[in-house]
Amino acid sequence: MATLGDIGLAAAINIISAFIFFLAFAFLRLQPFNDRVYFPKWYLKGLRSSPTHSGAFVRKFVNLDFRSYIRFLNWMPAALKMPEPELIDHAGLDSAVYLRIYLLGLKIFVPIAIFAWAILVPVNWTNKVSDIDKLANVTASDIDKLSVSNVPSGSHRFWTHIVMAYAFTFWTCYVLLKEYETIASMRLQFLASESRRPDQFSVLVRNVPPDPDESVSESVEHFFLVNHPDHYLTNQVVYDANKLAKLVKKKKKMHNWLVYYRNKFSRDDSKKPMTKTGFLGLLGERVDAIEYYTSEIDKLSKEIAEERDRVASDPKSVMPASFVSFKTRWGAAVCAQTQQCRNPTLWLTEWAPEPRDVYWKNLAIPYVSLTVRRLMMGVAFFFLTFFFMIPITFVQSLASIEGIEKWAPFLRPLIEVKFIKSFIQGFLPGIALKLFLIFLPAILMIMSKFEGFTSISSLERRAASRYYLFNFVNVFLGSIISGTALEQLNTFLNESANKIPETIGVAIPMRATFFITYIMVDGWAGIAAEILMLKPLIIYHLKNFFLVKTEKDREEAMDPGSLGFNTGEPRIQFYFLLGLVYATVTPVLLPFIIVFFALAYVVFRHQIINVYNQEYESGAAFWPDVHGRVIIALIISQVLLMGLMGTKDTAQSTPVIIALPVLTIWFYKFCKGRYESAFVKYPLQEAMMKDTLERAREPHLNLKGYLQNAYTHPVFKESEEDEEADQEIGGDSWETESARVPTKRQSRRNTPLASRISGASSPPSLPDVVVEQA
Amino acid sequence: MATLGDIGLAAAINIISAFIFFLAFAFLRLQPFNDRVYFPKWYLKGLRSSPTHSGAFVRKFVNLDFRSYIRFLNWMPAALKMPEPELIDHAGLDSAVYLRIYLLGLKIFVPIAIFAWAILVPVNWTNKVSDIDKLANVTASDIDKLSVSNVPSGSHRFWTHIVMAYAFTFWTCYVLLKEYETIASMRLQFLASESRRPDQFSVLVRNVPPDPDESVSESVEHFFLVNHPDHYLTNQVVYDANKLAKLVKKKKKMHNWLVYYRNKFSRDDSKKPMTKTGFLGLLGERVDAIEYYTSEIDKLSKEIAEERDRVASDPKSVMPASFVSFKTRWGAAVCAQTQQCRNPTLWLTEWAPEPRDVYWKNLAIPYVSLTVRRLMMGVAFFFLTFFFMIPITFVQSLASIEGIEKWAPFLRPLIEVKFIKSFIQGFLPGIALKLFLIFLPAILMIMSKFEGFTSISSLERRAASRYYLFNFVNVFLGSIISGTALEQLNTFLNESANKIPETIGVAIPMRATFFITYIMVDGWAGIAAEILMLKPLIIYHLKNFFLVKTEKDREEAMDPGSLGFNTGEPRIQFYFLLGLVYATVTPVLLPFIIVFFALAYVVFRHQIINVYNQEYESGAAFWPDVHGRVIIALIISQVLLMGLMGTKDTAQSTPVIIALPVLTIWFYKFCKGRYESAFVKYPLQEAMMKDTLERAREPHLNLKGYLQNAYTHPVFKESEEDEEADQEIGGDSWETESARVPTKRQSRRNTPLASRISGASSPPSLPDVVVEQA
Repeated sequence: MATLGDIGLAAAINIISAFIFFLAFAFLRLQPFNDRVYFPKWYLKGLRSSPTHSGAFVRKFVNLDFRSYIRFLNWMPAALKMPEPELIDHAGLDSAVYLRIYLLGLKIFVPIAIFAWAILVPVNWTNKVSDIDKLANVTASDIDKLSVSNVPSGSHRFWTHIVMAYAFTFWTCYVLLKEYETIASMRLQFLASESRRPDQFSVLVRNVPPDPDESVSESVEHFFLVNHPDHYLTNQVVYDANKLAKLVKKKKKMHNWLVYYRNKFSRDDSKKPMTKTGFLGLLGERVDAIEYYTSEIDKLSKEIAEERDRVASDPKSVMPASFVSFKTRWGAAVCAQTQQCRNPTLWLTEWAPEPRDVYWKNLAIPYVSLTVRRLMMGVAFFFLTFFFMIPITFVQSLASIEGIEKWAPFLRPLIEVKFIKSFIQGFLPGIALKLFLIFLPAILMIMSKFEGFTSISSLERRAASRYYLFNFVNVFLGSIISGTALEQLNTFLNESANKIPETIGVAIPMRATFFITYIMVDGWAGIAAEILMLKPLIIYHLKNFFLVKTEKDREEAMDPGSLGFNTGEPRIQFYFLLGLVYATVTPVLLPFIIVFFALAYVVFRHQIINVYNQEYESGAAFWPDVHGRVIIALIISQVLLMGLMGTKDTAQSTPVIIALPVLTIWFYKFCKGRYESAFVKYPLQEAMMKDTLERAREPHLNLKGYLQNAYTHPVFKESEEDEEADQEIGGDSWETESARVPTKRQSRRNTPLASRISGASSPPSLPDVVVEQA
Repeated sequence: MATLGDIGLAAAINIISAFIFFLAFAFLRLQPFNDRVYFPKWYLKGLRSSPTHSGAFVRKFVNLDFRSYIRFLNWMPAALKMPEPELIDHAGLDSAVYLRIYLLGLKIFVPIAIFAWAILVPVNWTNKVSDIDKLANVTASDIDKLSVSNVPSGSHRFWTHIVMAYAFTFWTCYVLLKEYETIASMRLQFLASESRRPDQFSVLVRNVPPDPDESVSESVEHFFLVNHPDHYLTNQVVYDANKLAKLVKKKKKMHNWLVYYRNKFSRDDSKKPMTKTGFLGLLGERVDAIEYYTSEIDKLSKEIAEERDRVASDPKSVMPASFVSFKTRWGAAVCAQTQQCRNPTLWLTEWAPEPRDVYWKNLAIPYVSLTVRRLMMGVAFFFLTFFFMIPITFVQSLASIEGIEKWAPFLRPLIEVKFIKSFIQGFLPGIALKLFLIFLPAILMIMSKFEGFTSISSLERRAASRYYLFNFVNVFLGSIISGTALEQLNTFLNESANKIPETIGVAIPMRATFFITYIMVDGWAGIAAEILMLKPLIIYHLKNFFLVKTEKDREEAMDPGSLGFNTGEPRIQFYFLLGLVYATVTPVLLPFIIVFFALAYVVFRHQIINVYNQEYESGAAFWPDVHGRVIIALIISQVLLMGLMGTKDTAQSTPVIIALPVLTIWFYKFCKGRYESAFVKYPLQEAMMKDTLERAREPHLNLKGYLQNAYTHPVFKESEEDEEADQEIGGDSWETESARVPTKRQSRRNTPLASRISGASSPPSLPDVVVEQA
């Protein structure tokens, strides 16, 4: 168990490293040659162009204005300045609501922390612990004096903790309720204020039954003409373009190599660049690189053209799914919410995702296959969760002082140095955990994809909820149980249902210091590192050096990244869990969490404004998940408090605490009924209102033309090689619509079309299938 | 533990009592004066009239044809003769599908029993139990030799049981799947083949927001004219007629007394009948009874008229709910399945229940109140379930041999008589349970009503699922745990999660004899008693003697009863649970269950054909519940088998068995996705088809007139005092429609109108508010 001194050292280390990250960021972002790494969003929006165009040569790359370095933290107020409505215009509702999760954390925990410090800490601190307790509680440290461990068993002071648990629960629920209400109305307002979007009129129809006499398109058309005669407008079938997408991707890679060798050649034209044709350019025949790649690209171009023709003409490459568009929003809302056919596994309708949001590969999975996939992934996730635990526990036991002394006795003299000992205790367990978790999101995303969700947003939501579960079992429970004693794991499996919360509850106050260091490493230094964008920075400069020839290439080389709901949200939720669990038990932890939420809020607000390029816009469809997980954390905290109280000879308090989870579950159900449908359904009243308004404003709108190509597989758009095609992408994609909103920032406001002329194309909507022709 | 001899005796007693019931039934049903008790359904349908019209006087009351007594079981083949489609016409889909639950039991358990007897019984029987085991298992009886208890710990023979568990699971799932499919298609076909019904065009709208300027009716009309402009037809507001219904009920009671005294007077006109005006006619002033009741009835009639006017004119008595009718089935299907308003707790739409099925009192409960009521009832049900257990356990311990000897030692000589001892062991525990359960359904129905369901069918479904849970916890678990040892209850609460199935699993084979006697008492003799209709028989004759003057009064005096889904279905489900749990453990139990299913099938088929008058028709909407509960029983059986195996030193089998519940849950989800929506939604394709057909057949249909008064509160209809109103009820209620279908039975087929002329009115749809004027 670490002492206050250890924690102070860990805090100092983490604050210093956070400070270094901020300094480095402040330095790097002011260099013009990094401009595209730290402000890609403005480039993508066409509101900023390379500073390299003007000024002295050196100035193009290095900022020599020393005054700008002095105010190295001035990005923080700048990030906070943009008002929320403008933020929604600028970055979309998803991003704005994502930021509100951090705000939610502040709203919940700042009052809780104040109360906890004002009431619970004095109550804990002022106890005279009996000698027997001191003997039993050998691990008591300074922090334990502020926590519930300091209250002797059977004390009436525990009623304070129970009352506070009630107060915290009611406060959390109140904030959650208000927030749900706000966000539901934000979403509805966003959907209402938004200009026309193809997904408002479209419904994704899956599992179209095969018809021997008709093509999929005809069959869909007939079905909907019969069953929605007044509303059906048109439909677009979905092609199986996976092979085409693969070819396009391959061609892009070849193209990159070609550019690389050309650049090399142009720099040093004495030597023709050569390459080998085999594995990774290491084996096989040596050939002239430029010639080789040019011919390969030609070959691929031909193949792509053939494949495109084949896909377009072969009826087998048409998937039994279709995007059906309606004349009115009302018609689409009706079709999306109703069952079409006697057999509920055929003619499945759901709201069409935004075109950017569609996950094309999964559109054609039949019902039986879907359910089998769900079962398989459920079982796989179970094994992943419960067998992942073994290596984590092992590594953590190694990374403790005792572990190292046991396994590597020769290191003992080194470890005994006070500084290194503190470092090991403060840092290693957190880092060991972190390393294990790096590859997990990718695995979970693959699992979600296999499960067959049809939109990227739903894929990410699914991966996020799995990640949360995983975190809970492995990081939270895993740390608590292996932390107190590895042996507990065994007894744990054989314990009775009412003993399990007790076992965990008892261990919780003892693990407070571990989680404090975890928060500092992951939540302080980790967030500060986020803003440095180290990986994109390096990749950008590598690309810039080897590949970039034109302004457009430079555009391509940017990797703004995106919010990454599937990893980011469960990470925040983990802090909610820690905060709620420790609020009544060890309130010392709360300030650390508040610092995390505040810091993360500022950092991510800056990133969202300046860096991230959102891949899709789901209109904050993730909020019910966020809400639900905070509730889960609340219930866990209540059950564990009950367990802890059970060990403190205050069994008579159990019925008082048990009412809390019951009420919390009821609150969850209440909110679900009250607000959730705003995120799932589209009320007919709204649809009718918008239809009526539109009919009055634009009576001669050619809706069919507007919707005709809205849901074309991106690979078809991307692989069209002329500039015209490029224009078209911008023309009917959502991007132009949102850019039309006047942005109040910078001088170049409201000039999206000018930017296109200056060479910036519209942003790639699905980065992995983007292709550019030389 | 009872021996085979005890069971033989109990079986003999139960078989004999069942036989006596059947004999009594055979005798009673052949007496003409009981005709209306045993064949009320035919009277209600107007297909049978009183045999009293013709023949000699004695013949009117007593059947003197001795030949008819000889074939006293010939109602059985008669009950089986009617083919299913005719049964659906005759008694509705609900009843026909209800019978299929018994058939399902036979389909599942007959093959399982054959396999279990062919394979498991020999495997169990041929073990040489070691002496140590014999000593430990002191309670071993003859039946235990056939059960899994006879296999020694660690034996490889247990693999047989595991393989059989797989086989039984797959068979059960297969039968369930086929049955779900059949019933889903039966339901859709029923809905499709049915003639026009008001609920096909209507949607129940609840939580209409109050509008200061408009009445509810206007507000509803405007809302739907705006949001469903092409489809809206008309709406009927719901009046708060609870007070009116109470008055009507009171008047009916008064009227009964009046008739009673008039009859008394007409028999003996020497003495004017007198009554007292106070409590129950026992206290207060003595007055002339006929005069008193006549004046009271006049007073009530006036009050009713006033109240009816008040309800119709006072805007406060209009509830914020309405039945909205549409021009097409398509329009109604769309409105029922979509969300109307931004706020999902306002303008709630759902399919209108059949007019007979509406539970009028609950139509006006706002959303927040509903969720609070659910919470309260959830908590109340928890306490009801877990605190009900204490008295049951107590009474059961009293009702055992040891208990009686301990509490009433003076009875010991009596108890020691072999016959009485067997009787106590065979009968008392079952009867003690049964007595406790008599009042439960009523409590559960009141709880469901408080929860705010809007249709009688959903009330009953809710009560049924609660009843099932209750049965499981108290009857099943309660009997098993208190049966082996009352002390186990305490240790049970403190046992680990993996020990609980073991504790129950071990006790299960020991309780086989208890459940066998339970099946015989409840399932054999109980079912046989059902057919005797003792309570309706007595009440009918009492009413007949005191109240009946006209043929119409006699009609009134009949109490055909109905199926009672809320009590009947959980009772059947209990047998599924027993059968599945004991299939692998003690296959001896299976034949008893098969006899129950077969007997109950015949008895209830007879009752449905001849007696029960269905209160509503939900189109087998209960099937998903039935299916789900069989699955629950299956999962319970698998978990308990796992627990049992855990105690038999065969821990390596656990992972093999654990796959079973996972697969079963997956199967449940699969079925839910595949079939459930047929019971919840109404596919647009179907709606459109029927609309198109109807438009072609009856282009000039006056739908508005047809729907105008379909959803009038029954009390308004019933309290209209002239015959015309009576005619109208028949005219637009569902009854006539179903009677139009030609019935192939009896000579009087197809003459529903003739029967009306002969004095039989249409059946009371809600018996408690029916009123008749002299």
